Amino acid sequence: MSTAWTSRYALRTKGITSSRIRELLKLTQRPGMISFAGGLPAPDVFPVQRFEEACHKVLTEKAASALQYGETEGYQPLRELLADNMARYGINAKVENVMITSGSQQALDLIGKLFINAGDRILVEAPTYLGALQAFNVYGAEYESVPVDEDGLRTDLLVEPLRSGPKFMYVLPNFQNPAGTTLSEVRRHELVLLADRFGIPIVEDDPYGQLRYEGEHLPPLVVLDRENLRRDSGYSIGNVIYLSTFSKTLAPGLRLGWIVAPPEIISKLTQLKQGADLHTSTFTQFVAYEVARDGYLDKHVKLIRQIYSERRDVMLQALEEFFPPAVTWTHPQGGLFLWVTLPAGLDMEAVFKSAVEQNVAFVPGDSFYASDAHTDSREGSRHMRLNFSNAAPEQIREGIRRLAAAVKSHLMDATLRAELPLGV
Amino acid sequence: MSTAWTSRYALRTKGITSSRIRELLKLTQRPGMISFAGGLPAPDVFPVQRFEEACHKVLTEKAASALQYGETEGYQPLRELLADNMARYGINAKVENVMITSGSQQALDLIGKLFINAGDRILVEAPTYLGALQAFNVYGAEYESVPVDEDGLRTDLLVEPLRSGPKFMYVLPNFQNPAGTTLSEVRRHELVLLADRFGIPIVEDDPYGQLRYEGEHLPPLVVLDRENLRRDSGYSIGNVIYLSTFSKTLAPGLRLGWIVAPPEIISKLTQLKQGADLHTSTFTQFVAYEVARDGYLDKHVKLIRQIYSERRDVMLQALEEFFPPAVTWTHPQGGLFLWVTLPAGLDMEAVFKSAVEQNVAFVPGDSFYASDAHTDSREGSRHMRLNFSNAAPEQIREGIRRLAAAVKSHLMDATLRAELPLGV
Repeated sequence: MSTAWTSRYALRTKGITSSRIRELLKLTQRPGMISFAGGLPAPDVFPVQRFEEACHKVLTEKAASALQYGETEGYQPLRELLADNMARYGINAKVENVMITSGSQQALDLIGKLFINAGDRILVEAPTYLGALQAFNVYGAEYESVPVDEDGLRTDLLVEPLRSGPKFMYVLPNFQNPAGTTLSEVRRHELVLLADRFGIPIVEDDPYGQLRYEGEHLPPLVVLDRENLRRDSGYSIGNVIYLSTFSKTLAPGLRLGWIVAPPEIISKLTQLKQGADLHTSTFTQFVAYEVARDGYLDKHVKLIRQIYSERRDVMLQALEEFFPPAVTWTHPQGGLFLWVTLPAGLDMEAVFKSAVEQNVAFVPGDSFYASDAHTDSREGSRHMRLNFSNAAPEQIREGIRRLAAAVKSHLMDATLRAELPLGV
Repeated sequence: MSTAWTSRYALRTKGITSSRIRELLKLTQRPGMISFAGGLPAPDVFPVQRFEEACHKVLTEKAASALQYGETEGYQPLRELLADNMARYGINAKVENVMITSGSQQALDLIGKLFINAGDRILVEAPTYLGALQAFNVYGAEYESVPVDEDGLRTDLLVEPLRSGPKFMYVLPNFQNPAGTTLSEVRRHELVLLADRFGIPIVEDDPYGQLRYEGEHLPPLVVLDRENLRRDSGYSIGNVIYLSTFSKTLAPGLRLGWIVAPPEIISKLTQLKQGADLHTSTFTQFVAYEVARDGYLDKHVKLIRQIYSERRDVMLQALEEFFPPAVTWTHPQGGLFLWVTLPAGLDMEAVFKSAVEQNVAFVPGDSFYASDAHTDSREGSRHMRLNFSNAAPEQIREGIRRLAAAVKSHLMDATLRAELPLGV
């Protein structure tokens, strides 16, 4: 079907395609499927009773404001609560450093809108969060990928890419999506030093930071930032823009995230947000404030940590039990994901199909790699991202059993192929 | 303060400035101020009790889905409800024609993202909705302005601008913001014929269509669309993209709007929305569905019509009583605004300051004109936009009395200046 609209698309939308993950999610909603594919919180941890009390309070005491238009920067008491809460993690943000966004995804979109001209290169991790690539692609971003290992971004490989002058770095230091790895403290210091030396600012995306199941909390980049340390007082936010969200602690259905940035950047982002959606729902902001206040957020995060760390352990145990020795995986200290590496030579598309036939799903790793000049596009095809937050422990065990069966059948094929003489 | 971030802004954000209206709104929140400046619904019409029942129902029966991630296109039952509801106004939309947005403002942003390349000209009304200009400006839009009169867009002036090939037309046919005028039925037919003849598609923005206080409902452009009429069956959506919102019927704090478009366009917009905010809050969508269902939306709209039409009448009466004969204004058949025209030669900035000193506020008309090659930029400075939905009737009367005093003092100055010999 064609209308006067078709053929009028802007150049920037050439090649936009639906997120493979979201398409996969649709596929995996059939009954009986155990899905490790999404990044969904467990619905059992939603604090439903507390939400009910919050809705009641907001609607009986503050309906005239909660249902009305609000300020673009966000609901002032919520911004204050966030500034207070982040102070406990060492982030010295004032209210004027905090802007509420319609989920963290909108923060990525607004940052793309504010900073990216077509052809600008963004330094990203390989692998990295797919949603960031989607947000930046629309503005014509190109990428410089730097690999991660178990200690996070390989800072030893940063000098050359930084010398080439990317617009900014996009980094997920805690329990990275998709790899589940955490940037070590030594590398955090190296990273902010390099950023300062080359004058390349950092977007620090931290959706999972509070969900740590073992080890010590590590200082966020925004705290270590050299520009920050140079200041004796006043604003502590300099070269690092910090992002976080309520999606993994309260509920993703609220679509509430936030940006921490210098006031001048907050002011520009506010102007862009006016044009993008005027402001984030006042109602959900009022409700989230009533849910989170009086220390409830921290109390609730403790419960989530307990439940998710159990699920992570069940998944790690099952991987150990069912997977063949040729397969390896990361050991995440927190977050929602782990990252499995298969021996080279497997056809990941075929593994995925076998898995879905066995009623278990994951996301193939190649979705998480930016395409750039240097990256070997086959690198991603050795990996699968597994989510451990959404399924119940007994399902996790059963799902890994099924997945191991699917992987093993293809491993045998690959071994057989490797053993056959050439030309057969 | 400068950091590595400053000086890295994208070209597209050059000259973005905070919306004058939103800055004015801050100014006019001081106690004792009667503000006709905003576009705010009356908080007394928010169906608070119904919201409470809806929140209770959603959280007791559907919390696991309502607080979880959802589909980018929107909550299916809400899209169905909207398709059914619009059918009553003659719009033959199927679910696949409807996408939920984070307020109508997001619809404008996504349309800009999908269609506007830097330098593309958009045909707009003069005056037009400021938020649309803000959304399109970011993508480098330029404008072709065509004046409105009491019967809406001057279709007799369209041939030349259409021949020059704008990307699309952006039109508000019902109770236009800011002018309060309605496109006559004859001109609606002319407009869709011209759109078809020149192959220029239309964005029809209809936030106020249900709020008609007198006269007959007129068919939306999306219904009259020639491309639509050529089809014997199936999708009825062709060259017109139609936008509407719950902001004026349920509550703006929900941030819920929707787009009606051909499925191919919905699919592209969905991909862009994934990158922009993943999806609109599932919680507010579930709540809005429970509020609106079973005919409640229509019942509630009747109540709003009654209250706002009374306020409009009070404002019209007060204008008649207090304003001097040299001042004229539109007679809106619905919506939230009317448009006052002052005699030439007044200094509108000075009038605005006097008004604020007298504790009454409005928005000066020049905010609502796109800058283009042909428009006389002084045209806007003769107008003021007055909102009649937000203030109570007795306040409206008092506010117009104060405003008339402010206008009269400047009228006398202008008359004196005109009467003085040159050079004095």
